[in-house]
Amino acid sequence: MDIASLIGLLLAIGLIIGSIALGNAPFSAFIDIPSMLVVIGGAGAAALICFPLASILKSPVIAIKVFLNKGEDRLGLVKQIVELAETARRDGLLALESKVADIENPLVRTGIQMAVDGSTPEVVEEVLRTEVNAIAVRHREGKSIMDQLGRFAPAYGMIGTLMGLIMMLQDMSDPSGIGAGMAVALITTLYGAIAANVFFSPFAEKLGLLSRNEMVSMEIAIRGVMAIQQGESPRAIDQKLRTFLPPKQREAE
Amino acid sequence: MDIASLIGLLLAIGLIIGSIALGNAPFSAFIDIPSMLVVIGGAGAAALICFPLASILKSPVIAIKVFLNKGEDRLGLVKQIVELAETARRDGLLALESKVADIENPLVRTGIQMAVDGSTPEVVEEVLRTEVNAIAVRHREGKSIMDQLGRFAPAYGMIGTLMGLIMMLQDMSDPSGIGAGMAVALITTLYGAIAANVFFSPFAEKLGLLSRNEMVSMEIAIRGVMAIQQGESPRAIDQKLRTFLPPKQREAE
Amino acid sequence: MDIASLIGLLLAIGLIIGSIALGNAPFSAFIDIPSMLVVIGGAGAAALICFPLASILKSPVIAIKVFLNKGEDRLGLVKQIVELAETARRDGLLALESKVADIENPLVRTGIQMAVDGSTPEVVEEVLRTEVNAIAVRHREGKSIMDQLGRFAPAYGMIGTLMGLIMMLQDMSDPSGIGAGMAVALITTLYGAIAANVFFSPFAEKLGLLSRNEMVSMEIAIRGVMAIQQGESPRAIDQKLRTFLPPKQREAE
Amino acid sequence: MDIASLIGLLLAIGLIIGSIALGNAPFSAFIDIPSMLVVIGGAGAAALICFPLASILKSPVIAIKVFLNKGEDRLGLVKQIVELAETARRDGLLALESKVADIENPLVRTGIQMAVDGSTPEVVEEVLRTEVNAIAVRHREGKSIMDQLGRFAPAYGMIGTLMGLIMMLQDMSDPSGIGAGMAVALITTLYGAIAANVFFSPFAEKLGLLSRNEMVSMEIAIRGVMAIQQGESPRAIDQKLRTFLPPKQREAE
Amino acid sequence: MDIASLIGLLLAIGLIIGSIALGNAPFSAFIDIPSMLVVIGGAGAAALICFPLASILKSPVIAIKVFLNKGEDRLGLVKQIVELAETARRDGLLALESKVADIENPLVRTGIQMAVDGSTPEVVEEVLRTEVNAIAVRHREGKSIMDQLGRFAPAYGMIGTLMGLIMMLQDMSDPSGIGAGMAVALITTLYGAIAANVFFSPFAEKLGLLSRNEMVSMEIAIRGVMAIQQGESPRAIDQKLRTFLPPKQREAE
Repeated sequence: MDIASLIGLLLAIGLIIGSIALGNAPFSAFIDIPSMLVVIGGAGAAALICFPLASILKSPVIAIKVFLNKGEDRLGLVKQIVELAETARRDGLLALESKVADIENPLVRTGIQMAVDGSTPEVVEEVLRTEVNAIAVRHREGKSIMDQLGRFAPAYGMIGTLMGLIMMLQDMSDPSGIGAGMAVALITTLYGAIAANVFFSPFAEKLGLLSRNEMVSMEIAIRGVMAIQQGESPRAIDQKLRTFLPPKQREAE
Repeated sequence: MDIASLIGLLLAIGLIIGSIALGNAPFSAFIDIPSMLVVIGGAGAAALICFPLASILKSPVIAIKVFLNKGEDRLGLVKQIVELAETARRDGLLALESKVADIENPLVRTGIQMAVDGSTPEVVEEVLRTEVNAIAVRHREGKSIMDQLGRFAPAYGMIGTLMGLIMMLQDMSDPSGIGAGMAVALITTLYGAIAANVFFSPFAEKLGLLSRNEMVSMEIAIRGVMAIQQGESPRAIDQKLRTFLPPKQREAE
Repeated sequence: MDIASLIGLLLAIGLIIGSIALGNAPFSAFIDIPSMLVVIGGAGAAALICFPLASILKSPVIAIKVFLNKGEDRLGLVKQIVELAETARRDGLLALESKVADIENPLVRTGIQMAVDGSTPEVVEEVLRTEVNAIAVRHREGKSIMDQLGRFAPAYGMIGTLMGLIMMLQDMSDPSGIGAGMAVALITTLYGAIAANVFFSPFAEKLGLLSRNEMVSMEIAIRGVMAIQQGESPRAIDQKLRTFLPPKQREAE
Repeated sequence: MDIASLIGLLLAIGLIIGSIALGNAPFSAFIDIPSMLVVIGGAGAAALICFPLASILKSPVIAIKVFLNKGEDRLGLVKQIVELAETARRDGLLALESKVADIENPLVRTGIQMAVDGSTPEVVEEVLRTEVNAIAVRHREGKSIMDQLGRFAPAYGMIGTLMGLIMMLQDMSDPSGIGAGMAVALITTLYGAIAANVFFSPFAEKLGLLSRNEMVSMEIAIRGVMAIQQGESPRAIDQKLRTFLPPKQREAE
Repeated sequence: MDIASLIGLLLAIGLIIGSIALGNAPFSAFIDIPSMLVVIGGAGAAALICFPLASILKSPVIAIKVFLNKGEDRLGLVKQIVELAETARRDGLLALESKVADIENPLVRTGIQMAVDGSTPEVVEEVLRTEVNAIAVRHREGKSIMDQLGRFAPAYGMIGTLMGLIMMLQDMSDPSGIGAGMAVALITTLYGAIAANVFFSPFAEKLGLLSRNEMVSMEIAIRGVMAIQQGESPRAIDQKLRTFLPPKQREAE
C-alpha cells in the first residue's frame, strides 16, 4: 500500500474541489458530461489506436499498481541469496535442488533451477537477462500508455475548446450568452489539464520509478545467482550485494 | 486485423461528431473545404519536401498497416526453429537444405540457406543483422512520415488561422461579421489539432510499437539460426528462445 | 533532381497564395516589407551569430541540395566493388593500382590506393572512418543551420508581433485603426510560421535524410574496401554488400 | 555555504517585490492564499503521487543542500590518497590498516579497508562502482523531485487560472467585476511561473551540477584506491589524479 | 576575431531598432528600466542559483569568446606534430626533450613531456583524455550558463507581463489607460524574447560549435602524441592526421 500516492491524489482532488467551493460559482458550472466524454473518451480512443487492446484493458490494473505496490524487500532478497550460497558452499550446488521450490523471487528460482540442471553460467545469465529485458519492455509499455494519455488528454481538451469557441462565435446575436458559451468552451481545456496533471502524468512518473526500483532488485537477483553458480564465498556475496541496499540497511546485521 | 486501432479511430471520430451534434451550431459551421486544403495539403506538402516521393506514395499503405497487421506468431516461430534444430541434430546441418523452401520467416530462411551453403557463423550473423538494420531504417522512415505530418498539420493550422485573423482584422467595418470571421479562422487550428491527434500522432505511435515487436521476433530468428548453426541442443534452444515469449505462452507445451 | 521536394515546396506556396486569393482581403494585406526584414533578417542574423561566416555563405548551396541531389546508385557501387574484388582475386591486390584512377567513389578510391600502397587494414579503416566522421560533421552543420533558422524565424516573428502590439496599444485614440494595427502586428508571426514550416524545418529534415542515406553508401564503401583488402571472395562480398540494398534491387542480377 | 545561490534567490525575490512596489497596485493585489494553495499544494500533491513519501519528506533537506554545500576539496583528497600511496609503498598495503579510521572520504575508506582485508582489485572496483551508482541514483531522485515540482507548478497554475476564468465568465452581469476577476484568475499562473523559475527549476539545475561535481571526486577516489592497490608509484598517482583538478590547483605544490 | 558573430549581433539589433524607427510610436515606448531589471536581473538571479559564483563571474569573458576566438590552426598543429615525429624518428624520443618548451599546443607539450619522462603510452593517453574531458566539462558549463539564461529570460519576461496585467486589471476605472498599461505589460515579454533570441541562445549555440571544433583539434593532438610515442613513421602520421582537416587543406603541401 503506497500511502504517499493515495494522499497525493486525494490532496490534489481536494484542492481543486476546495477552491471551487471557495469561489462564488456553483459546482454545476464545472460539470459538463459531453466535455468529459470528449476529453477522457478522446484520450482513451487515441490510446486505443496506439496500443494493443490487451494492453489497454490491463491499464486500469497498472494504474492501481501506483497505489498498491508492496515495498521491495531487497534486504530479504540478499539474505535469501546468501543462505542459498551457504548451502551451496557446504553441500554443493546440487543440494539447492530441494530448496528451489521455496525460493520466492522468480529470477533466483529460474536461475538456481537452471544451474542445478547443469546449464553453463553463460546460458543462465543470457536467459535471466532476456527475461529482465522482457519485463522492462512490459513496464515501459505500461508507463507509455499513461504518458500517451497524459499527452492526448490536453490535446483533446484543446479540440473541445476550439469546437466550443467556433459554436459560440457562430451565434453572437445574444451578447449575454457569450460569457457562458466561453466558460463551457474552456471546461474541456480544464478537464484535459486536470486529467493530465492529477492522474496520467504523475502515474507515468510513478510507474517509471517503480520499474527502476524493480530493475535494481532484479540486478541483485542475477548477480546473486551468478555468484552462487561460480562458487563465490557467502561472505563475499553478502558484501557485494549489500552495496545495492541503502546505507542504513547495509550494516543491519 | 487490429480491432483496437479501428475501434479507437471510430470512437475518436464519433466523439467529435457527437459533440458537434449535441451543440446548437449546424454541422456546416465545421466544414470549410479551403481550410481543409490548407491543413492537410500543407502538411502533405511539407512531408513531400522532407521525404522521397516513393516513401510518400507508400505512406497510405503504411497507415493501413496500423489496422491490418496480423499478430506476431512468436510461439510458432520458436517451434519451427526448434524443429529445424532437431533435424540438424539428427541428420546434420545439410539435411536442412530440403526444408529451406518451407521456412516462412525470411530471416530464418536466409540464415539457414547461408549456413547450408557453408558461410561461417560470423558472416551469417553479419548479413542477418545488416538486414534487420535495413528493415529498422525502413520502419523508422514510415513512422517518421507520420510524426512529421503530426507536427506540420497543427503548424499549417496555425498558419491558416493567422491568415484568417489578418483578413478579418483588415475589415472590421461590419462588427456582426467579426464572430463568424473568427470562427472560420479558428477552423484551421481545429483541423490541424484533429489531424494530428486523431490520425497522425497515434498512427506514428502504433507504427513504432509494431516495429519494436517485429524487432523482437527478428532477434528470436537470428538467435535461433546462430544456435542451430553452432549445433546447440534443441532443448537448450527451446529454453533460450521461449524467454522471449510472454510468460503465459512459455509453458504452453 | 528531387521532384518530390520541388512539388512539395510549390504546393505549400500555392496553397497559401490560393487561400489568400479565395479570401476577400487584397493581397497587399499580406505584404509588409519591414515585417519580412525583421523575420528573415532576424533569423539570418541569429544564424550568423551561431555559425562561421563560411558555413552561412554555403547554406544557400546546401538548401539547393534539397532539390538537386542525384539519387544514390548503391547498386552501381556494389557492382564496382565486386569488380575490383574480382581483379584483386585474379591478379593480386597490386593489379588494382591501374584501376584506382577510374574509381568514382572517393572513399573506395582512397581506400584502394592506401591498400595498394601497403597500409595495414587497421590504418585504412581508421583513415576511412575518420573521413566519414568528418563528412558527417559537415552534414550535421548544414542541417543544423536550417534547424536554427527554423527555430529563430518564429522567435523573431513573435518579437515583431510584440513590437507591433506595443506600438498599436500606445495609440488607441482611433479605434478604427486597432484592427489594421493588429493585422500588421500578426503578419510577422505569420511570416515566421511560413518561413519555418514551408522552408527551413522541411529542408532540415530532408538534409538529415540525405545524410543518413549517404552514410549507408559510405558504410558499403568502407566494408567493400576492407573485404577486398582481406582477400574475401567476390561472391561473399557481393552477398554481404547487397544486404544494404532495398530488397527489390538485391536479386537484380 | 554557497553564497551565489543565496544571493541569486534573494535577488530574484527582491526584483519581483521591487517591481510590485514600483507599480501603482497595492501589494494585497498579489496575495491570494487559495491560489497559493492550489499551485504549491497541487504541485506538492502531484510530487507525492510520483515519489515515495520518504523521498518527499527529505526534499526540503535536499533543497537546503543548494545553499549549504561545502565546496569540494579535491586537492585535499588527492593529497590524502598520495599520502596513503606513500605509506603503502614504504611499509606495504597492510600498513594502511591503522590509518583506515582516519580516512575522511567514505569511498577511499571502504576501498582501502577491502584491499587490506584481501579482496581482489576486481571486487573492490565492483563494490565501489556499485556504491557510486547507488549515490548517483539518489542524487537523480533528488533532482527529479525538483524537476517535477518545476513542471507541475505552472501546470497547476494554469488549472487555477482556467477555474478562475470559468467562474468569472459564469457571472458577467457586473462588468466592473470582470477586470478584478480576471486579475485573480491570472494570479495562479503568476504563482506557478514564480514557483518554477525562482525556486524549483534553478534548484534542480544546481542539484544536477553538485551531483556531477561529486561524481568527479568519487572518480578520483576510485582511481586512487585502484592505483594504491595495484602498487603504482605515489608520483604516478599524483600526476594522474591531479589531471582531475582545475589547471590552477594542479601545480600548486 | 569572428566577424560573422559580430555582424550577426549588430544586424539583429539594427533590425529591431530600425523597425521601431519605421513605426509611428516614439522610442521611449520601448524603454522601461524596471522591466529590463526584471528580465535581465531575474534571468541573472536564476543563473546565480544554478551555477557557482566563479562560473557566473567568468561568463562575460565566455560571451566575448563568441566574438574573439582565433580560428583553429589545425594544419599548423598537424605540421608541428609531423616535425616532432621526424625528430623522434631520426634522433630518438629523448631528442624531443629540448623541443618541449617550444610546443605551443598544451596537450602535445604535456604528452611529449610525459613520453620523454618515460611514462607508458597507456598512462599518457589516460592523462591526456582526462584533461580533454575536464576541458569539455568546463566548455559545457559555459554553454550551459548561456542556455539557462536563454531559458530564464523569457520566463521572467512572462512573470513581468503577468504582474503588469494583474496591476492593469486591478484598476480599469480609466479605460483610456488600458492600452498603455497593456503595452507596458507586454514589454517584459518583448525584452525576454530579445534577450533569448538575440543574445543568449545564439551565444550558447556558438559556444557549442567552438567547443566541438576544439575537441577535434584535441583529438588530433592526442592521436599525434600517441603515434609519435609508438614510433609510427612521420609519413603515416601525416596521412592519418590530415584526414581531420577539411578536404581543401589536405593536399596543401
